[in-house]
Amino acid sequence: MFAEIITIGDEILIGQIVDTNSAHISKELNKIGVQVYQITSIQDDKEHILQALEDAKNRVDLVLVTGGLGPTRDDITKQCFIEFFDDDYVENEQVLQHIKELFLKYFNKEPLPSNLLQAQVPSKATILFNSYGTAPGMWMEKDDTVFVAMPGVPYEMKYLLKDSVLPKIIENFNRPHIYHKTLLTYGMGESDIAHRISDWEENLPQHIKLSYLPALGRVRLRLSSKGADEQKLRNEVDGQMEIVHKMLSDIAVGFEGETSITQKIGELLIQQNKTLSLVESFTGGALAQEITRYAGASAFYRGGIIPYATELKISILGVSDELIKKHSVVSLPVAESMAERGSKIFQSDYAIATTGIAGPTKGDGDDEIGTVCIAIAAPNGVISEKFLFGKVRERVIQKSVSKAFEMLLKEISKN
Amino acid sequence: MFAEIITIGDEILIGQIVDTNSAHISKELNKIGVQVYQITSIQDDKEHILQALEDAKNRVDLVLVTGGLGPTRDDITKQCFIEFFDDDYVENEQVLQHIKELFLKYFNKEPLPSNLLQAQVPSKATILFNSYGTAPGMWMEKDDTVFVAMPGVPYEMKYLLKDSVLPKIIENFNRPHIYHKTLLTYGMGESDIAHRISDWEENLPQHIKLSYLPALGRVRLRLSSKGADEQKLRNEVDGQMEIVHKMLSDIAVGFEGETSITQKIGELLIQQNKTLSLVESFTGGALAQEITRYAGASAFYRGGIIPYATELKISILGVSDELIKKHSVVSLPVAESMAERGSKIFQSDYAIATTGIAGPTKGDGDDEIGTVCIAIAAPNGVISEKFLFGKVRERVIQKSVSKAFEMLLKEISKN
Repeated sequence: MFAEIITIGDEILIGQIVDTNSAHISKELNKIGVQVYQITSIQDDKEHILQALEDAKNRVDLVLVTGGLGPTRDDITKQCFIEFFDDDYVENEQVLQHIKELFLKYFNKEPLPSNLLQAQVPSKATILFNSYGTAPGMWMEKDDTVFVAMPGVPYEMKYLLKDSVLPKIIENFNRPHIYHKTLLTYGMGESDIAHRISDWEENLPQHIKLSYLPALGRVRLRLSSKGADEQKLRNEVDGQMEIVHKMLSDIAVGFEGETSITQKIGELLIQQNKTLSLVESFTGGALAQEITRYAGASAFYRGGIIPYATELKISILGVSDELIKKHSVVSLPVAESMAERGSKIFQSDYAIATTGIAGPTKGDGDDEIGTVCIAIAAPNGVISEKFLFGKVRERVIQKSVSKAFEMLLKEISKN
Repeated sequence: MFAEIITIGDEILIGQIVDTNSAHISKELNKIGVQVYQITSIQDDKEHILQALEDAKNRVDLVLVTGGLGPTRDDITKQCFIEFFDDDYVENEQVLQHIKELFLKYFNKEPLPSNLLQAQVPSKATILFNSYGTAPGMWMEKDDTVFVAMPGVPYEMKYLLKDSVLPKIIENFNRPHIYHKTLLTYGMGESDIAHRISDWEENLPQHIKLSYLPALGRVRLRLSSKGADEQKLRNEVDGQMEIVHKMLSDIAVGFEGETSITQKIGELLIQQNKTLSLVESFTGGALAQEITRYAGASAFYRGGIIPYATELKISILGVSDELIKKHSVVSLPVAESMAERGSKIFQSDYAIATTGIAGPTKGDGDDEIGTVCIAIAAPNGVISEKFLFGKVRERVIQKSVSKAFEMLLKEISKN
């Protein structure tokens, strides 16, 4: 069983937005055994939409369409469905009531005529109720292929998918099981990893596929398999993962979904009953964002401070003026002092401190753009390291975040 | 002239990564007058890749392919190009030297055989040199359609596109001009906006297209046009934008690219010679991230503090214990005190403070999940507002960030 996702919207084709809907839908479909064969993004153009629907019909069993269901004139997906299915509009009473209620509740007013038109739906469609917006989803069939239209607003789409679309797919299709497991590694390049595990890779069963996903400072290794017997699939893939995990034990931090480097840090801190604070200069909240992404962070994360201006490192943190003058603000002694002061002020066991020049212009000192110092204050003392991370602001920050968590994890893992 | 982007990689089709390459490429192509007709994402599967190349050949003049050029076994794009163009491999000396130099410089070792294989390229290809990685880009032609292969690693792709691919497209194709301009609005729904500007919209010239891009708490309005005479295009679109900007002056903050709400805040602060600090509780660095995304932030941004644990609001910020006990930690008086203390400690003219329950579990107090208090300390005093932003952690944080900047901008704009 194969699916295609069609995302509709000029904003995608001109690069004004990144299409995140496709990744979300793909992930959810995989969980219920539906393999996505292709993702197609096209403009709000009638001819092209009709062509894409026709092409997809010949390729797959299920087509999920997002976008173009809004109340404004540039939204034409519903109209294209009417034409593609040779259908007519009917008014859906439940949708009409829902639109009226939404407007009363959130805006305390009557809906506009354009909003009421959203209750006009194709007569052949099964309507999928959208609790979070005014545009309903639609489920339609043609020549044994199912077409589902969903709004393009990500959170409306997500709820509609979860509450209506996925259950209906499960009910209507026979599906195999798809199982992925991904090992997270840090600090080694993909070709070195491939070299180290090449014997194992060569002997992998045909039906288990290995993929390498390299990113800044880390590589993810994914095993994927598909089959009828879920337990057998899992046993096989988990077994192979166990083998490769052992071969890469020095660089592996765990499995995606089950863990991430920040989650692993969190788990270890909670286990050890220890706490963390963050002193971020040029990373400006990037570390904090990663840590507080997890709902459980309050169990170990005390908080952080972002002394962006150099003088604040002195006035708020209490780093010594002489230290900064002697070594420059981007230096190991200053990073170490920042970390130590952070852990004191926030009464935390561990503290990460970052100081650096992300660019594009030089900072207060003479340091080269891309110079970064990271320090970790730990119960046993403070460690620090200096790096040169290139000239691209975004990458300097990303690499520093990666490296800071890697250093912290190493320190915590010693206990 | 039309282009298609084909992104190759199982990780996209299973939703393990969000494809950001397509948006970047689309944006850059638009700038040089190339319209993207379709974006197609497919798996690392030979048959499917060959089919997608053939289909694209029949649709467009230029096909940009990313992904599958790495040194590991799951990378098969180059092999597919060899087959599609009925070609053979030759060794490229310059690429070979570059690979050797990269390994020596960054890893201080010899490349592996798998890395050296990356210097084997199709004999008919024009090689596009990749300074930032080991996989070169390739430019090939078949039946009047140009095919370009680029690595999937985003920063390698970006540099290759900018340094080699775009200049070569400009050299080889006659292109019209494409011009987009996008107005940013805050605080009104898309149907209300459409209603207000409907007369103007109806009278827009046929060749200028209006699109509505709704998101949490804001709507972007885009005008797009294409033509041979760039100056005429710009004059027309800018003229129409001026009209609609006036009609929406109460909710418009400016134009995308030229500005964003944080940039506008920054510009006004610099103009007024004022500074900002941030006191973030549950938003945990999300505001700081937005502010420090801009390289110029150090001119007005003093820094921030993230007192995640309640007691730190007392010990570090100096919010009074009684105030928290009396009103609860998520209350207007506490938010106001946090903002006032922040602007004192950081010696800033303005301070934003956030306190709230993002969920999924309740915080220290009795407040409902989604309860948020935001305060702005300004030279003339402190203002604050309380919100209920729903039950979804991510959305509660996003909406709070939007609202906080909206409140701050209003305050700054008073001067």
